[in-house]
Amino acid sequence: MIRVGVLGATGYAGIELIRILSMHKNAKIMFASSQTYAGKKLAEVYKNLQNIVDLTCEEVDVEKVAKSCDVVFTALPHGASKQIVPALYEAGIKVIDLSGDFRYKDQAVYEAWYGQEHSAPALLKKSVYGLPELHRDEIANTSLVGNPGCYTTCSILGLAPLAKNQWIDMDSIIVDAKSGVSGGGRTTSLGFSYAETDETMKAYKVATHRHTSEIEQEIGLLAGQEVKLSFTPHLVPLKRGIFATIYAKLTADMDTKELVNAYKAFYKNEFFIRVHDEGSMPELKYVNGSNFVDIGLCVDKRLNRVVICSCLDNLIKGAAGQAVQNMSILFGLDEKTGLNMPGFYL
Amino acid sequence: MIRVGVLGATGYAGIELIRILSMHKNAKIMFASSQTYAGKKLAEVYKNLQNIVDLTCEEVDVEKVAKSCDVVFTALPHGASKQIVPALYEAGIKVIDLSGDFRYKDQAVYEAWYGQEHSAPALLKKSVYGLPELHRDEIANTSLVGNPGCYTTCSILGLAPLAKNQWIDMDSIIVDAKSGVSGGGRTTSLGFSYAETDETMKAYKVATHRHTSEIEQEIGLLAGQEVKLSFTPHLVPLKRGIFATIYAKLTADMDTKELVNAYKAFYKNEFFIRVHDEGSMPELKYVNGSNFVDIGLCVDKRLNRVVICSCLDNLIKGAAGQAVQNMSILFGLDEKTGLNMPGFYL
Amino acid sequence: MIRVGVLGATGYAGIELIRILSMHKNAKIMFASSQTYAGKKLAEVYKNLQNIVDLTCEEVDVEKVAKSCDVVFTALPHGASKQIVPALYEAGIKVIDLSGDFRYKDQAVYEAWYGQEHSAPALLKKSVYGLPELHRDEIANTSLVGNPGCYTTCSILGLAPLAKNQWIDMDSIIVDAKSGVSGGGRTTSLGFSYAETDETMKAYKVATHRHTSEIEQEIGLLAGQEVKLSFTPHLVPLKRGIFATIYAKLTADMDTKELVNAYKAFYKNEFFIRVHDEGSMPELKYVNGSNFVDIGLCVDKRLNRVVICSCLDNLIKGAAGQAVQNMSILFGLDEKTGLNMPGFYL
Amino acid sequence: MIRVGVLGATGYAGIELIRILSMHKNAKIMFASSQTYAGKKLAEVYKNLQNIVDLTCEEVDVEKVAKSCDVVFTALPHGASKQIVPALYEAGIKVIDLSGDFRYKDQAVYEAWYGQEHSAPALLKKSVYGLPELHRDEIANTSLVGNPGCYTTCSILGLAPLAKNQWIDMDSIIVDAKSGVSGGGRTTSLGFSYAETDETMKAYKVATHRHTSEIEQEIGLLAGQEVKLSFTPHLVPLKRGIFATIYAKLTADMDTKELVNAYKAFYKNEFFIRVHDEGSMPELKYVNGSNFVDIGLCVDKRLNRVVICSCLDNLIKGAAGQAVQNMSILFGLDEKTGLNMPGFYL
Repeated sequence: MIRVGVLGATGYAGIELIRILSMHKNAKIMFASSQTYAGKKLAEVYKNLQNIVDLTCEEVDVEKVAKSCDVVFTALPHGASKQIVPALYEAGIKVIDLSGDFRYKDQAVYEAWYGQEHSAPALLKKSVYGLPELHRDEIANTSLVGNPGCYTTCSILGLAPLAKNQWIDMDSIIVDAKSGVSGGGRTTSLGFSYAETDETMKAYKVATHRHTSEIEQEIGLLAGQEVKLSFTPHLVPLKRGIFATIYAKLTADMDTKELVNAYKAFYKNEFFIRVHDEGSMPELKYVNGSNFVDIGLCVDKRLNRVVICSCLDNLIKGAAGQAVQNMSILFGLDEKTGLNMPGFYL
Repeated sequence: MIRVGVLGATGYAGIELIRILSMHKNAKIMFASSQTYAGKKLAEVYKNLQNIVDLTCEEVDVEKVAKSCDVVFTALPHGASKQIVPALYEAGIKVIDLSGDFRYKDQAVYEAWYGQEHSAPALLKKSVYGLPELHRDEIANTSLVGNPGCYTTCSILGLAPLAKNQWIDMDSIIVDAKSGVSGGGRTTSLGFSYAETDETMKAYKVATHRHTSEIEQEIGLLAGQEVKLSFTPHLVPLKRGIFATIYAKLTADMDTKELVNAYKAFYKNEFFIRVHDEGSMPELKYVNGSNFVDIGLCVDKRLNRVVICSCLDNLIKGAAGQAVQNMSILFGLDEKTGLNMPGFYL
Repeated sequence: MIRVGVLGATGYAGIELIRILSMHKNAKIMFASSQTYAGKKLAEVYKNLQNIVDLTCEEVDVEKVAKSCDVVFTALPHGASKQIVPALYEAGIKVIDLSGDFRYKDQAVYEAWYGQEHSAPALLKKSVYGLPELHRDEIANTSLVGNPGCYTTCSILGLAPLAKNQWIDMDSIIVDAKSGVSGGGRTTSLGFSYAETDETMKAYKVATHRHTSEIEQEIGLLAGQEVKLSFTPHLVPLKRGIFATIYAKLTADMDTKELVNAYKAFYKNEFFIRVHDEGSMPELKYVNGSNFVDIGLCVDKRLNRVVICSCLDNLIKGAAGQAVQNMSILFGLDEKTGLNMPGFYL
Repeated sequence: MIRVGVLGATGYAGIELIRILSMHKNAKIMFASSQTYAGKKLAEVYKNLQNIVDLTCEEVDVEKVAKSCDVVFTALPHGASKQIVPALYEAGIKVIDLSGDFRYKDQAVYEAWYGQEHSAPALLKKSVYGLPELHRDEIANTSLVGNPGCYTTCSILGLAPLAKNQWIDMDSIIVDAKSGVSGGGRTTSLGFSYAETDETMKAYKVATHRHTSEIEQEIGLLAGQEVKLSFTPHLVPLKRGIFATIYAKLTADMDTKELVNAYKAFYKNEFFIRVHDEGSMPELKYVNGSNFVDIGLCVDKRLNRVVICSCLDNLIKGAAGQAVQNMSILFGLDEKTGLNMPGFYL
């Protein structure tokens, strides 16, 4: 039994971790922290957990975590993670960090896009970008995983086969991404209230969203060259889900069927990636509630442009599920463990 | 042209007043206050008003309001109204107050249910309960209208013919009411966030909601006796709308058709009350966007119980529309003026 | 390993059975029928099942089912079940029927409320009403379970302790129930389209809904007397969930705390019933995604009336989850098996 | 008073015409047809119209329309319009057609994208593309308007200043469009049911949607060259609204402020086009319920790419409102007549 700690357990990524781990046969939650609710039963804060989870929220306590846990998930806000992760790492336990703080190879890129100094730059060399489909072996050999977020996982996996094979004009990439509301976290801001969010939608942080740099890092690594691309996030009246529509100029001479086959070949060993057959396109209801990424694509011969649709559940494959998948890699379990469920559909 | 002021213009009732008045051919908004946004263009706070409304939010200024306006709508939080209304009233302008502060005949009832002293009890004797269908003549002769809220308008109008005719057991009344989210105002509280509100519902303030006392006051007046009843509010994932399902033991020997006809007769001069034919029941999409109240009913002969469904748009007939209807009464206009629009349906 | 068949696998109750059974460690789906999609892969009809479920929809084939399955779930429309269940029963396999056809003790009641003859009345004497919390021992000894639906499970469990103890006036019961849209099945009717359903709500079949008779049967059994009650269903813009607000005149002298304690005592051995502490009321987000029923209550001393809120996921505890719970009883498994998951919350 | 006919009055575009015209001070509806509901009161089919609209649905009757109306709106399905419009046109009344049948200059383009012959090609030479902001003068001089749809109005107006000035690489245009559900019409298809549509989204008809050709026609005319572009429609859980995110490679050396100013100048006489200031981006809640198009933009200097967000209410500026605007042009009224309302916001 893997002994697990969750820091930031009452945020939406944290509580999804608790929900998934409460059904996991090889993991046991030993410690859950919450700054806001310390001292309160977790099942009082989230009453869906009544009869299932019997844990009390605690203050963060590195020593206690180190003693009682084999691995800790840090589901803290960006910036807060890099304050606490070094101590956890020093204490010798494995850390899977869900913030942006340990996802970057290049400190300067982090600092430019996050507008703050990185207080633990040495750890950036130790940390591994926790996208199992691209970095499985490195993850297996690290103690610090920078777990990717929802927009980035969705975008990178949608683009990876094209980038790796350099079948597209690398200057032509556009990612138009649509997100559900839980992606913004458990927030009380007016812009996330029901009355201001239902039956409307908007784009936000156009041309300036931080996740752009993370997608560029990974697509650049795959392509073997520096890559710059457009990334436009939208807020849509959904509770869960990320849907990315990706465009690029195709340089290879391929039709839809050939490209679908190439994607299937690229992901042939990846249980959690489902490439749709020619003519089928993904919908959020296929993936929400699961750890799957569904990808469909179409080559528009008229324009020689490829359109890829990629989607996932932002709280699962885009956060907590991927973190659990990374835990399986760190501990040598089958990656399906605890994640072998279909989407809700309804 | 009636010169109008709106205090609390950036709350949801206030902004719906602005929206309705911006299309009103006999009214002109001279003054709009907002504590939060004073100094800002109203059309910057609510960008739907761009090109339509050219007003700047001001601080409350009684003297200025009194000089520039013939009537003022006070769409302030409960408690705040009774601080400001006396000065406006003294200044000699007509006041239509959308809070609960001037809806009560009996100061003691107000103080019991609101848990606070009433600082202007003398005005309770001057104010008239602004439900035109029941108090039209009194409204025409007052300068201070206590404009009823959404739950109460919906419940009282659904029950009025039964109460007036004493066709029911007055101890048997139950109002099960369902509300959209805008009824809670423009709030940032977590319980109104999209992620916590969509795809869920709940009852709240069971047996303790303030509006109980307001419904009891008016139904008691109609019945000529003290009335106590059950009122249960629910929060449902809707932006607009109140839907009340009302139950009572029928003492009269009537079937559905007879009772429908009695309701039609009771409301025969009321443009804004639409009593459905036997076999038809109201839906929110018929009334949302309009000043109508739709009422349907069914006599359950098996149990000798009547079930009434009553619904309205909480922001219009439940707030701003009713206030404009009251303005028409105060100034001798046709009550349809500015309110002669069908529901959105979509 | 229990070998399972699902007839009507592509309706919403059927597909929820498939989803739950696909994660069940002691059951294996051997047979799935679908009239509409016979010959098609189940994972082509519901693409959320890709990589998880590898089954092809078949035509109903009693012989094949009897040979390959230990138990069969019939998730067919009302009326269709009673055509096929007798043959399955004769063939000697256990049957859990999700329609209304085998829920009645009294053939005449069924025929009166369903407006059709019952073609297999002899089986009504063999079948057991599949509400484990009330009929566990009988279920364990039958081969034919009439699995209760969503409205009835929610209403009966909310009322059971009061009825059993006769703490209420049995003529005063009112159940005001709100349902999500999936309760109507996988239908293409206009009244269930998104444009006609979102941001609106309605009551339907007021005083005439079939489930009234089913609730009356069970509450009557508990109370030891004939019971007639009001049941009003509403359609609310939710995908999942039933929320029942129940009213009755209290004849016992109890306050909220005492009644809460009595409910907790009544359900003390029931894992899936969660009685909320005084002051807490259930919300759908606590139960949706789980097999739990959450119950909260309040004694309104002013009126001597009790208000009970009871809610559950219509597709799980109101259909597929309850059916799996019944399967566990039939085969001697722990009832939590395959159902030990918390609600989604998000 | 303009005498108006509406053919196809019970579809969503038709009923929105009825709703808008019912509040129009210079128009009177003389005739409303509905194939499905002929003989029924319009206010029985759409009960939101009770007390407001007193019309009975009729069968299409060209002679009667010609005699009783000055102008007729044909809100019929694509294909049906071209069967009936010629007779109406011959009869000498003005026709505003809301289908795709009379929007094309080039019969071959229509036939290629619609997969059917055009039975009235001569009329394509008479008809004018009814986008007032681009073709006001031609509209004033025609008797047959091909009223543009929602996707196209939103996309074309978002791109027009760039195309007209040739500030972009014409091969680089991508329109990623998101639509509410009412855009699909009043349909009973499963893919539009609430349970299958809420909390999910998808792309559809990728690279093959008919409206592509209509956008290409108009952008080509503005640019003075043939244009081919990517258009990807998505279905999003909204009742109303189109939101287009448009991408193009900028060839001009302009920053966001300069381009915003150029858009403002281009549309300076257009009441219904609201160009947002630098730093502000449109949201659907600003435009839904109104005839406005809101446009915001951002020049991404890092990539030399422009991102434009354009949105409108698909039933108003994308259908019925635009048709009424065209009617004003045909009859010399101020275009704001009947359309001078702000968005609902809530």
